[in-house]
Amino acid sequence: MSKFIVIEGLEGAGKSTAIKNVLATLAKHGITAPVTTREPGGTPLAEKMRELVKQGHPDEPLTDMAELLLLYAARAQLVGNVIKPALAAGNWVVGDRHDLSSQAYQGGGRGFDRELMATMKRTVLGDFTPDLTIYMDIDPKLGLQRASARGELDRIEQMKLDFFERSRERYLEFANNDESIITIDAGQDLDTVTASIIAALEIWLATNGN
Amino acid sequence: MSKFIVIEGLEGAGKSTAIKNVLATLAKHGITAPVTTREPGGTPLAEKMRELVKQGHPDEPLTDMAELLLLYAARAQLVGNVIKPALAAGNWVVGDRHDLSSQAYQGGGRGFDRELMATMKRTVLGDFTPDLTIYMDIDPKLGLQRASARGELDRIEQMKLDFFERSRERYLEFANNDESIITIDAGQDLDTVTASIIAALEIWLATNGN
Repeated sequence: MSKFIVIEGLEGAGKSTAIKNVLATLAKHGITAPVTTREPGGTPLAEKMRELVKQGHPDEPLTDMAELLLLYAARAQLVGNVIKPALAAGNWVVGDRHDLSSQAYQGGGRGFDRELMATMKRTVLGDFTPDLTIYMDIDPKLGLQRASARGELDRIEQMKLDFFERSRERYLEFANNDESIITIDAGQDLDTVTASIIAALEIWLATNGN
Repeated sequence: MSKFIVIEGLEGAGKSTAIKNVLATLAKHGITAPVTTREPGGTPLAEKMRELVKQGHPDEPLTDMAELLLLYAARAQLVGNVIKPALAAGNWVVGDRHDLSSQAYQGGGRGFDRELMATMKRTVLGDFTPDLTIYMDIDPKLGLQRASARGELDRIEQMKLDFFERSRERYLEFANNDESIITIDAGQDLDTVTASIIAALEIWLATNGN
């Protein structure tokens, strides 16, 4: 049975390394070529929407509402044209971010109310949801240090610390109330983080996997 | 008191000519420089969203849901960054299309359900709505003949006749249930159409205008 696994977390939480570990673990179980996606983006049209969200425009602020709608437009493209067809064809899908990012950043960070966020999700995605989400939890101060060490920051990464603190709080709230979300302490040393991800995924695969 | 006037209608209904008549009539009343907008679009970022809706992508279909969300993203930009600030500054605004286009094309044409369309409108616009809408009603067969005579058709204009018939039906339904929408029979000869628009606007201005 094909599954949709998502890696979530703040900037600098180590999502890329986590994805590598997930792919390597899946490969050991014979799942050698899952479809990988990133959000926002992951299709030609969704990548154009990503660009509008990430870069904005020098002459015009992107309103929070337009940002939210663009993110869901990109998600509708990716789910409709890539993720659902891949799952239907029997492929596993490993996603770098999905709806939980919007719940955290737009709901928690930007402050859109919970009902509006739930309505957007239900309207655009119905009951489509990842089988497993691995949430890489990190103190935003540490995460932003790591992210800024990587180079120039985009429109979102330039937000102030309290934006990320609110986002993290919302991430944790969802993680604490949803059994399909596993929280990894991403502030530990790299070897421990890696071991935690692999162990969590192995346990999950043993009961839910192939 | 500044007002927001919108011109609506199917392709080939004569919106551009109607807008000229509206602007000329307003000018006679001393409203010489209203802000003019078009939807989707009308701001640098909204124009980029318009492009995605109008042109799509050669390698990927734009899903109906992503189209709907892009249109509302563009509308959020335009209302937030142009229309509301203009009205607040005391300017009149004359719009080439607004939310009623989405109700007609996405609700009627694409077939999104009424509740979803009402939710999108309420979520993105709250109770913001035009003071007056002039709906140019035309038989889609005639409208499409006129539109195709103008040159190459975009992604929306290439839709089949029944799409536009459903859109027109929804336009008429809204027009019949909303006193702020005036319907003009755009199938009449040009002089009669022009006279009808001017007469309707003069009457409206006498009771609602400056």
